[in-house]
Amino acid sequence: MYRTHTCGELSLANKSQVVTLAGWVQKVRDKGFMVWVDLRDRYGITQLIFDAERTDVKILEQAKALGREFVIQIEGEVIEREAKNDNIRTGAVEVLVKKLTILNSSKTPPFTIENKTDGGEELRMKYRYLDIRRKPVRDNLIFRHKVAQAVRSYLSDEGFIEIETPYLIKSTPEGARDFVVPSRMNEGQFYALPQSPQTFKQLLMVAGMDKYFQLVKCFRDEDLRADRQPEFTQIDCEMTFIDQEDILNTFEGLTKHLLKVIKNVDVTDFPRMTYAEAMKTYGNDKPDIRFGMKFGELTDLAQGKDFPVFDGQELVVGMAAPGCSDYSRKQTDALIDFVKRSQIGAKGLIFAKYNADGSFKSSVDKFYTQEDLQAWAERLNANKGDLILVMAGEADKTRGQLSALRMHMAETLGLRNPDVFAPLWVVDFPLLEWDEDSNRFHAMHHPFTSPKPEDIELLKTNPKAVRANAYDMVLNGNEIGGGSIRIHDKATQKMMFDYLGFTPEQAEDQFGFLMNAFEYGAPPHGGLAFGLDRLVAILGGQESIRDFIAFPKNNSGRDVMIDAPSKIDDAQLKELRLKLDL
Amino acid sequence: MYRTHTCGELSLANKSQVVTLAGWVQKVRDKGFMVWVDLRDRYGITQLIFDAERTDVKILEQAKALGREFVIQIEGEVIEREAKNDNIRTGAVEVLVKKLTILNSSKTPPFTIENKTDGGEELRMKYRYLDIRRKPVRDNLIFRHKVAQAVRSYLSDEGFIEIETPYLIKSTPEGARDFVVPSRMNEGQFYALPQSPQTFKQLLMVAGMDKYFQLVKCFRDEDLRADRQPEFTQIDCEMTFIDQEDILNTFEGLTKHLLKVIKNVDVTDFPRMTYAEAMKTYGNDKPDIRFGMKFGELTDLAQGKDFPVFDGQELVVGMAAPGCSDYSRKQTDALIDFVKRSQIGAKGLIFAKYNADGSFKSSVDKFYTQEDLQAWAERLNANKGDLILVMAGEADKTRGQLSALRMHMAETLGLRNPDVFAPLWVVDFPLLEWDEDSNRFHAMHHPFTSPKPEDIELLKTNPKAVRANAYDMVLNGNEIGGGSIRIHDKATQKMMFDYLGFTPEQAEDQFGFLMNAFEYGAPPHGGLAFGLDRLVAILGGQESIRDFIAFPKNNSGRDVMIDAPSKIDDAQLKELRLKLDL
Repeated sequence: MYRTHTCGELSLANKSQVVTLAGWVQKVRDKGFMVWVDLRDRYGITQLIFDAERTDVKILEQAKALGREFVIQIEGEVIEREAKNDNIRTGAVEVLVKKLTILNSSKTPPFTIENKTDGGEELRMKYRYLDIRRKPVRDNLIFRHKVAQAVRSYLSDEGFIEIETPYLIKSTPEGARDFVVPSRMNEGQFYALPQSPQTFKQLLMVAGMDKYFQLVKCFRDEDLRADRQPEFTQIDCEMTFIDQEDILNTFEGLTKHLLKVIKNVDVTDFPRMTYAEAMKTYGNDKPDIRFGMKFGELTDLAQGKDFPVFDGQELVVGMAAPGCSDYSRKQTDALIDFVKRSQIGAKGLIFAKYNADGSFKSSVDKFYTQEDLQAWAERLNANKGDLILVMAGEADKTRGQLSALRMHMAETLGLRNPDVFAPLWVVDFPLLEWDEDSNRFHAMHHPFTSPKPEDIELLKTNPKAVRANAYDMVLNGNEIGGGSIRIHDKATQKMMFDYLGFTPEQAEDQFGFLMNAFEYGAPPHGGLAFGLDRLVAILGGQESIRDFIAFPKNNSGRDVMIDAPSKIDDAQLKELRLKLDL
Repeated sequence: MYRTHTCGELSLANKSQVVTLAGWVQKVRDKGFMVWVDLRDRYGITQLIFDAERTDVKILEQAKALGREFVIQIEGEVIEREAKNDNIRTGAVEVLVKKLTILNSSKTPPFTIENKTDGGEELRMKYRYLDIRRKPVRDNLIFRHKVAQAVRSYLSDEGFIEIETPYLIKSTPEGARDFVVPSRMNEGQFYALPQSPQTFKQLLMVAGMDKYFQLVKCFRDEDLRADRQPEFTQIDCEMTFIDQEDILNTFEGLTKHLLKVIKNVDVTDFPRMTYAEAMKTYGNDKPDIRFGMKFGELTDLAQGKDFPVFDGQELVVGMAAPGCSDYSRKQTDALIDFVKRSQIGAKGLIFAKYNADGSFKSSVDKFYTQEDLQAWAERLNANKGDLILVMAGEADKTRGQLSALRMHMAETLGLRNPDVFAPLWVVDFPLLEWDEDSNRFHAMHHPFTSPKPEDIELLKTNPKAVRANAYDMVLNGNEIGGGSIRIHDKATQKMMFDYLGFTPEQAEDQFGFLMNAFEYGAPPHGGLAFGLDRLVAILGGQESIRDFIAFPKNNSGRDVMIDAPSKIDDAQLKELRLKLDL
């Protein structure tokens, strides 16, 4: 052992002890006759002191020559500091160095190893091993570990068994694109890396394992949107002999537990909202309910008043931005610019200021009386001082646009407080969604999701209206997990594949093993999966998942540190019976 | 929730309660006026009773029609059994059924779902979801979960942080063959799946994470020997500012903890044995020390007595098989046949019976006196009643052959007791081993292992004699883990790559990122990895790892249940810019 203590534990209780420490040189302050060195390791920083009166002159000279990030080992006596630093645990003491060993030198790091670094994203990723030395990144990784451990111990205590499912599985074209792995031993054949352990966890339920979980890597070969990774980690769960309510309660319990043990936050029971209600009230299936600004529909009130922008539209919908009635022209113009951005694509935005004195001032005063606007305000639960924001158009699209504006307003008004946690369940998702590209229905969740029994008849007449036993957990405007009650009989599963455009042969070829399993006593079952990367980031009060992943990939799917992917040997290709076709 | 209780929890304490259970029909006994059903779930078996006097006749008829593995839900009253079954927890009660719902039917399973099944390996794997319903397999998976949880909580308590390293990494030709993953976004380039997170965990040490662990899947595309899997799980660990002794103590602590909490077995401190000593004493670098039969070298005693089989050989070596002096000719012939098998390849075997009366009877009485044989017996620590077994030839080869015989004798004599746990450390492994195929040295552990400083000079003169700071933990004749103190400076790492036949360009191309990292303050570090599959099997007292893996692959690397690997679409190949070259 190179040390008697870490750099994070010495205090006045150790005064006069002779200790050995090892770590990295964070900083050297050379006052000529006296040198201070901040020595850093995972556990903290301890100040070392070398001085001409009490330290051997050779060691003092060595100390002066230390560079940033040198790795050293020292022996010395713990003494009380004159100028104490209350910000760090070891701030009351320093170590008067008697012996110094340089364990390794360091070139000058390409960016500063400080809480706020001067290194850009690309450079930090290339030298990720230096980036992780920075306390914020290191703390994120430790935080992730704590969350993962808490998840495991909670689920284990609840009787869940963690079971490892295979990574080398079978490619199926449904869903996202698979990463594939050529098999050398089975010529011309490929494994696929799992997009999720979905079918395996269902088979474990058929196998009677009753309650399964796994923290597991999943893989999707998709063009990477910002903050997506080709490999990501799921908390994957499945239960048997349960209905939807049991699953919601179980994972509500898990989430409450995490908020309590990790953040010391108590939350009450999670609200449950149907998908339809979420879309109507927030224009979004993952509403951030840390704040209000609920939508109100004004179609009946706003139409028929000769205002051509509203008349004839499918929907007129608005919300009240709290305390914004004094917005300047510049500010309201900025909001118009915001909704007109191509990502949002709205044609415009109507304002009505609900002044502090109870009067209204709107951009459409020509068409609406004070009484008209009063009715709007009531519909939107607006208060004096609020700014009423109204949009009109095709219903779904307009709700989506107003939702984007709602989030923008919340951001602007500082309502997205990372220390507030507002979870909810969104339930009754549609079973199917229409896919323009392939001109057919896709499973909104996945093809194993069960339709609500009372809606099955609608499959023939109005497939879009069929609701699934599917649910998402939403936390602060992020979907952190979702799941469903599964189909557990062969007939229904076959019917679903049929509706999704599989030929019977395709269904058999790709999912025959699952449908066969359903014929041998498959029990009712269901489950869900949480995105661990996202969950950890939100619990950590941050927006980006990247700094909660030790070695993330960039938006081209590259690891710029190890420079992967890369070319492989011709011999390797030959063994795999492959040729490049560039 | 489909149940108020599981099938494993009812007892007389629940007498007279009305309960709801759900599970699988294990067995139906139909006595006409009375039907008993054993209802099974993960937690146990509960006996249900339907009788003509107390059960609705329609339900009785339904019960009679139940098939094996049907999934049912029942409601009924807990009553005391007349004939109690002390073998199961619920054996004092049965449930008098009032309501019966068939949740799913089942075809007749292709093999019996019993502790001892009539299904062969291939069939069991194809219907693994039925195989797992069998208690021994289910219990193995639950056992694995418990071991994994115990590992995680122990290491977490010791300050280790579990950090997920990437699965999509870079292919390197050193070591075993990589599985590769074509990258669609980076044309003509491939990721590799990790054979271990070796370089990443070293980078985490450079990054200052201090103590890392991970339960992690690893991948090797090797021709599969029996009981090897292309994907397997490691307990992977690394520590900073430690020397070898710290690592041995830490993981000895982990292993003792596992033996205690999982098996309630106390073991004392693990013996430490050098590689040289293990090879000399047991002919094996993973000796099973649950029993003796240590080797003794007889070269000086046995040569020069005109026995041509021994004279001139590099080594004459023997051991004493306890209590086998009364072996018949048939039995000794069988031992000769055993060592002559092509897998072992010995030319023959010499016997000397150390009779109960102190006399000797050997196959070489013509050449050796009773006094000669007495000297052998003393060298081998033989006791009266033992059978002395002696082989001769080239030293390494002969030791290996005698080692195989030693294990065979132990098996025959019932000395490999799965309830006894005899761990040890084997240390001071050679740094390099000669590879006949490639006609160069390979790293015996891996190229990041540090040579012993006092042996570095030997690299130039006698590379085979250079010892590494490398160690294995051995448990009951199995290597369950191994590791080393790593190189942590660029110069030594470069030198190692050079000795291993890398050109500077190859070294830079493949491991440049690691050598660069070593220039930015890399600390002394080391670690090890345990094979979780093997560890769990040994703790479970079993030889094969396959039944501790939920969904194992066969010896051709196939998952016969899902039928993977398989062909993929031409469109998929095209997107990946690949062509088959069959």
